[in-house]
Amino acid sequence: MENGDIPENANEHCPGTQSESAGKSDACQGCPNQEVCATAPKGPDPDLVTIGERMATVKHKILVLSGKGGVGKSTFSAQLSFALAALDYQVGLLDIDICGPSIPKMLALEGQEIHQSNLGWSPVYVESNLGVMSIGFMLPNPDEAVIWRGPRKNGLIKQFLKDVYWGELDFLVVDAPPGTSDEHISIVQCLDATGIDGAIIVTTPQQVSLIDVRKEVSFCKKVGVKVLGVVENMSGLCQPVTDFKFMKTMETGEQTDVTEWVRDYMREKAPEMLNLFACSEVFDSSGGGAAKMCQEMGVPFLGKVPLDPQLCKAAEEGRSCFLDKDCGASAPALKKIIEKLLENQELAISADNGA
Amino acid sequence: MENGDIPENANEHCPGTQSESAGKSDACQGCPNQEVCATAPKGPDPDLVTIGERMATVKHKILVLSGKGGVGKSTFSAQLSFALAALDYQVGLLDIDICGPSIPKMLALEGQEIHQSNLGWSPVYVESNLGVMSIGFMLPNPDEAVIWRGPRKNGLIKQFLKDVYWGELDFLVVDAPPGTSDEHISIVQCLDATGIDGAIIVTTPQQVSLIDVRKEVSFCKKVGVKVLGVVENMSGLCQPVTDFKFMKTMETGEQTDVTEWVRDYMREKAPEMLNLFACSEVFDSSGGGAAKMCQEMGVPFLGKVPLDPQLCKAAEEGRSCFLDKDCGASAPALKKIIEKLLENQELAISADNGA
Repeated sequence: MENGDIPENANEHCPGTQSESAGKSDACQGCPNQEVCATAPKGPDPDLVTIGERMATVKHKILVLSGKGGVGKSTFSAQLSFALAALDYQVGLLDIDICGPSIPKMLALEGQEIHQSNLGWSPVYVESNLGVMSIGFMLPNPDEAVIWRGPRKNGLIKQFLKDVYWGELDFLVVDAPPGTSDEHISIVQCLDATGIDGAIIVTTPQQVSLIDVRKEVSFCKKVGVKVLGVVENMSGLCQPVTDFKFMKTMETGEQTDVTEWVRDYMREKAPEMLNLFACSEVFDSSGGGAAKMCQEMGVPFLGKVPLDPQLCKAAEEGRSCFLDKDCGASAPALKKIIEKLLENQELAISADNGA
Repeated sequence: MENGDIPENANEHCPGTQSESAGKSDACQGCPNQEVCATAPKGPDPDLVTIGERMATVKHKILVLSGKGGVGKSTFSAQLSFALAALDYQVGLLDIDICGPSIPKMLALEGQEIHQSNLGWSPVYVESNLGVMSIGFMLPNPDEAVIWRGPRKNGLIKQFLKDVYWGELDFLVVDAPPGTSDEHISIVQCLDATGIDGAIIVTTPQQVSLIDVRKEVSFCKKVGVKVLGVVENMSGLCQPVTDFKFMKTMETGEQTDVTEWVRDYMREKAPEMLNLFACSEVFDSSGGGAAKMCQEMGVPFLGKVPLDPQLCKAAEEGRSCFLDKDCGASAPALKKIIEKLLENQELAISADNGA
């Protein structure tokens, strides 16, 4: 049947919902779908054609996904975009988390607005080669909830893809909300025909997070999106000993801050402590963490990023941590991961051509 | 107009979509909505009546919400349920995170299945007074993605409310996914008529998380759900000094584990260090954190729970941290928060009657 699906409750001899005679043939008389069929537009979604035209100038499309929320997906998307831009690529960052957009904050673009030209919606630019689009730029009041059901979210995602004028891009990084629902189905359906290079999945080391990552990998396999790799974030906290606050439990059970005393005490009695890093696992990774999960599921492991208060602060302030000397243990880890990602032949070669 | 909405594209003299003559009156001839109106069921959603009957045996309904994911909402829901059950209340915990259910894992109920009786679906019981319902119990393969758009998720949530036989409950705790979309609109619409006591909103201290909490508070205000209070989770890491791993940066730039050496060194040179706690902020709360946000938005602040590796481990293993002596700094903090919550007159008084 070339003329589209036949609804379950259709009359006999239904010509198909996509047929020119849908809703109009003799067989349609009395069918409950008659009105809808007669008036609905026919043929492939014309929006996909427009999206295809927009995406013709975008070399690589990378989705950043996570199973669970709060694993640092937006932080990673932001830092990846900063890093690619620093390598002189033309980069676009598209935030499709409609109900909880974090990207404007993470690139220090709060309060910015989208401008419209005859070419379409203009992204907000951090630098000349790093443009950003998010619903965050469209909300008159940042505190207001965006209480939207799926179809409305999907509509905006489609509009982002149809109406944003990115110009020539080496990379379009798409930051998705957690899960495997409307936004994810929509972005894949809209971009499928234009080619998605693949997805990076961000997780934390605990089992409870890895359960959801497995679901995300299964989602990618089902919809035919390649998994470029998995990043384990918040993989332990490592800080200079001198950055900690020290607390003493008193006989009353109350805790007192003894940081100053401890610093003096260390200087005097145990000076060698002062140059050390103290590390804590924070999130249990006794199950083997993301590396083991990747092996089991046959997807690449890109590396671990430690829980780094400096990275958290950089994300809060919209700075690049990748290039910032102030960043602690996370900067070299992020750098390694991005290098590993760009070793991917398909990404690297043609990006080089374009850079 | 008592007969429902009039669609924008309706004919003149439309009797209204909920009218008995919808789709059948003279005015309906040729209207594009005629078929739909003539066949669609009329009157209030009959499911709401069934839900009302089910909920008649439930004294208190509490939603646990968060703006961002990964802030520990499910961990809090689980620990709250454990705590209420330990106080001898009859407790039900309903997980409406359809695409990423964490609750089965967090109550050590993985692999359990839902049974059906002539009373409806039976929750899975942790103890005789703590029953749990989650899509996690319905998936043949826990790794498989649940790739569902909104309407299907809403359908399951409705079914949970209609078909689960909870029996007499003092508290029904509803663990929602992050955000303000389908699941949230559905649960509020379905439970509205039966009375929702209110919502607890969980957050972490960073600005990027607080932005989303403001949206969640705005959601509650818009849909008329009272905010019982805000919990600040992962509010700094505090651990015994002896629980840390110590790393030394060598001249080559590599880091070596010197934990054993440091422990001996402390014992010998600085024994007073051994009884201290070392604390790190981890997530930047320089903006004043949740307490300040609560003040600004006029909602109660319930307290802070530190980032506690023991709590994370308890959550991973499905144990109650609230009662467990092994739990570190988080147990007393959680206890205080739950006491503060139960000070709420409306919750406490009638729960006492029922306990």
